[in-house]
Amino acid sequence: MAPKVLICGSITWAHKDVKELLGPIAEVVHFDSVDRKDFLKGFQPGGKYEGTVAVFRDNNLTDQIGIFDKELVDGFPSTVKWIAHNGAGYDQIDVNACKAKGITVSNTPGAVDDASATTALYLLISTFRNYAISERSLRELKWKPDGLAKRSHDLTGHTLAILGLGGIGMRLAELAHAFPMRILYYSRNKVDDAPDWCEYFENVEEMLAQADVLSVHVPLNPNTAGLVGEKWIRALKKGAIIINTARGKVIDEDAMIRALEDGHLASVGLDVFPDEPEVNPKLLEFPYVTLLPHMGTETQDTQHKMEVRALKNIQGFLSSGSGEDVIPEMKNM
Amino acid sequence: MAPKVLICGSITWAHKDVKELLGPIAEVVHFDSVDRKDFLKGFQPGGKYEGTVAVFRDNNLTDQIGIFDKELVDGFPSTVKWIAHNGAGYDQIDVNACKAKGITVSNTPGAVDDASATTALYLLISTFRNYAISERSLRELKWKPDGLAKRSHDLTGHTLAILGLGGIGMRLAELAHAFPMRILYYSRNKVDDAPDWCEYFENVEEMLAQADVLSVHVPLNPNTAGLVGEKWIRALKKGAIIINTARGKVIDEDAMIRALEDGHLASVGLDVFPDEPEVNPKLLEFPYVTLLPHMGTETQDTQHKMEVRALKNIQGFLSSGSGEDVIPEMKNM
Repeated sequence: MAPKVLICGSITWAHKDVKELLGPIAEVVHFDSVDRKDFLKGFQPGGKYEGTVAVFRDNNLTDQIGIFDKELVDGFPSTVKWIAHNGAGYDQIDVNACKAKGITVSNTPGAVDDASATTALYLLISTFRNYAISERSLRELKWKPDGLAKRSHDLTGHTLAILGLGGIGMRLAELAHAFPMRILYYSRNKVDDAPDWCEYFENVEEMLAQADVLSVHVPLNPNTAGLVGEKWIRALKKGAIIINTARGKVIDEDAMIRALEDGHLASVGLDVFPDEPEVNPKLLEFPYVTLLPHMGTETQDTQHKMEVRALKNIQGFLSSGSGEDVIPEMKNM
Repeated sequence: MAPKVLICGSITWAHKDVKELLGPIAEVVHFDSVDRKDFLKGFQPGGKYEGTVAVFRDNNLTDQIGIFDKELVDGFPSTVKWIAHNGAGYDQIDVNACKAKGITVSNTPGAVDDASATTALYLLISTFRNYAISERSLRELKWKPDGLAKRSHDLTGHTLAILGLGGIGMRLAELAHAFPMRILYYSRNKVDDAPDWCEYFENVEEMLAQADVLSVHVPLNPNTAGLVGEKWIRALKKGAIIINTARGKVIDEDAMIRALEDGHLASVGLDVFPDEPEVNPKLLEFPYVTLLPHMGTETQDTQHKMEVRALKNIQGFLSSGSGEDVIPEMKNM
């Protein structure tokens, strides 16, 4: 009997790929539950998900069954060995609970790099040039707001600090280097294969003091929640800009808003917020900021790539015992 | 007696440079007239501009004295030998009238390349990713509009056609090549020092048929008004995008609007309009387009560079007989 794979989320672009990648080696079952209780019941003997060995998941069903917290993970039977998350950020999965049950988690890191870094570049241009307020002014048929040149800058020749030089951070570095901007970075470790023009800082505050703009590219986990707080924000130069395309909770939003209020920060460009889809209405009061509703990977090209990548992790597990994109926390299990 | 230079426009960032560049070699006089008649009277014997040999100009005084048309240029005395325009596009100067009077015209081509190309890149990202409608949706606290991924694309791997591979077009080519996009171009002539990855087309319609997006980078003159008309627009693939950071009148706006209405064009990204600061309100009805109020060079860094460049052309003329940036129409005089 073919091993059972549960699609617990949305396949939008990769229907053909599901057939090609999993068709020959698995029985593919689709999520069909009303709530969390009903969902977990499906895994019991006689249930529609009984015998599932691998789960494809995304964040689309969170409203219905909640996040993959300890309770939910503990509710899986021992047949489940792999959770293939469709996305780069897997903060909706309790990794420790998965570890304890012997479930491996994969994500789709490389697939999102280009689209997410492009979003960060967009926010960089928009905030450096004050295009959000300019577009609103035009749409009110008021043409160009006065005095914008005075607070607007070219990217070229300015300094970008990247917090976390993983795939997305490195991709942004490449795009910003084309101007060129000067590129600084702080990561847990120096990145061995980073190009020479990426300047590594062991001391984050020394990096921040030199930056015109900070772009955040670290995952959300217990170590990074609130990482960009009062102290780091104040370590930036007066008039600096912060870009966040990672996760809202990595920044202390109150500290960031205080710095916007007192003018320490000139602007922020945000694609992510602590309590999505809620947005702190205070942010709308700052005329120069650019705010996007989490559009980092919202393209059919990238979403297709991501779905294929998640499916390939399951294919790899089923055919050879492991997928490529095992999350870092599990690589040394 | 030092030759007289008239600043007929705004020096905003380069006050120090005026002193350094022209102070030792010229008498600098500033515009101080109420209208065109009063302005031209100033050049007459005993007038405050009498004996002026070089004029620094920009488009800021057009409301007061009009454009530099034949009447105005013909009103200059024979002492005036140089008009240093502060800007890349000099469509507000009657070049033939200047030629006839032996007045040389310079502009500031290189200085605007980076800022203008960055604006084009911004419009590319915004239209490919549908960020204008996304920002508006967030600001109405409605979070993300449904179904945007379906009409959104990564830049990477798509094809950009550049109309006019001058300084701005080449700079955009470099920035878009960083993704990479495939880069095609059509110019009056093949550009000898263009890199290999810039594919030259002798036939503009063959280029358009392969493009996902067309970016316009030709100056406005009698040969280019309406250049991008019905025929060229329809030569683009269905679903293509047009970006314009050059001049509004280079595109036939009615033909462009028809193509948006019937879906031949997926979107447009415009920084320029035929009758600025007026904007055709029909454009606001298309939910996906991105519209900026001519922000191409609206940064203090670039405006400083432009002012210095215009001043250096005057300095060059006064000290050695010619400035560097003589406009192409006058190079073979």
